[in-house]
Amino acid sequence: MSASREGTHNLRRGDSVLPAWVKEAVRATLRPVVGLAMALHITPNTITVFGVVVTLLASVLVAGGWLLVGAAILTAGSLLDAVDGALARAQGGGTAFGSFLDSTLDRVGEAILYIGVAGWFLFAYEEPAWPVLLTLVALSGSFLVSYSRARAEGIGLNATVGLAPRTERLVLVIVGIAVAGLGYDLGLIGALAIIAVLTMATVMQRIWHVWRQSQAITLDSREK
Amino acid sequence: MSASREGTHNLRRGDSVLPAWVKEAVRATLRPVVGLAMALHITPNTITVFGVVVTLLASVLVAGGWLLVGAAILTAGSLLDAVDGALARAQGGGTAFGSFLDSTLDRVGEAILYIGVAGWFLFAYEEPAWPVLLTLVALSGSFLVSYSRARAEGIGLNATVGLAPRTERLVLVIVGIAVAGLGYDLGLIGALAIIAVLTMATVMQRIWHVWRQSQAITLDSREK
Repeated sequence: MSASREGTHNLRRGDSVLPAWVKEAVRATLRPVVGLAMALHITPNTITVFGVVVTLLASVLVAGGWLLVGAAILTAGSLLDAVDGALARAQGGGTAFGSFLDSTLDRVGEAILYIGVAGWFLFAYEEPAWPVLLTLVALSGSFLVSYSRARAEGIGLNATVGLAPRTERLVLVIVGIAVAGLGYDLGLIGALAIIAVLTMATVMQRIWHVWRQSQAITLDSREK
Repeated sequence: MSASREGTHNLRRGDSVLPAWVKEAVRATLRPVVGLAMALHITPNTITVFGVVVTLLASVLVAGGWLLVGAAILTAGSLLDAVDGALARAQGGGTAFGSFLDSTLDRVGEAILYIGVAGWFLFAYEEPAWPVLLTLVALSGSFLVSYSRARAEGIGLNATVGLAPRTERLVLVIVGIAVAGLGYDLGLIGALAIIAVLTMATVMQRIWHVWRQSQAITLDSREK
């Protein structure tokens, strides 16, 4: 997983809800890690794959009820997450394949994370139905946000508008898991509800945005 | 929802498990519907959106335990599904926005369908944990198959290889729901397991395919 493209992009667009100094501090902290990875000739793609393994471990822990440990490992994994992008930049720019692998495995990591959360509800709750369905909506919404953007880029348009960039979604879920680990399950349910609403709003916003772009292009076509 | 691009493409590539005469028969059946839609000046995009509404209705019925009725409506919705693509072709080819809307709402429809199935397990089962987790994996796998292709196209490569085209996934789930409606739940669980395995294999196959393409392009770069 990596915060590289989507994160950077949204940071530039200025709609990030994370203060810039937080991202700057994270980058400064990671500089020695990037230097170490370069010295050891570790490639960005290796770090991307390693990030998925870390997320898988954390999700199994979350599903098993070790919420605080899971949240801690997810935090470490998310920091690592910023390393592959930084490493690729330090090595003179990433490859097309690195970019593809990174964002595809970002989605794999998100899926694993939400499956872990759903697993916790399923194993820990007597009546897990509604929290699990909410988790499914949050997962689907997150996927649709990424898909709509990738699909728009596939037809040469852009759909980078949106209220719920991946980094912020990740922070929300991890904080939610930690708060549930402290005994306040409503924190996690609230985080999932916010993600569900924001991602659905973002998908509708992106469809609208692509429609407006395509109208500008095809003013004289039969659709108009 | 529509079987247009992904379906057509996979049909051309010849790896479809549905016999060609089935698809031809479906097309012949739909011809009068396409003619009616043209006479009424209904746009392909309207049909695409209507398909999502039909899927939503069917999923609510499935979640509520009306599996056979749900499967019947899903079948009707999937046939309708082929109408928007056929209508766009009959009107002289679809627009870029139509293509974007169609595939984005295909994903929305898939999400709604799997959420309905998960809802049924959650409400009908005493111990829904494993079937629901399997449904989540099948949903995530289906999404990743579509995402990896869209993302590859975004960077100018292609990732159309794969064992689990959308039409076949849809047929599997609908047949599984109907079989469960007849009292054989294992039919649905088996269908989900097949989808989970095939989609994960397809995602790995697509990553490998994109890697090979990018190697061919960047033979002389630092990655090599």
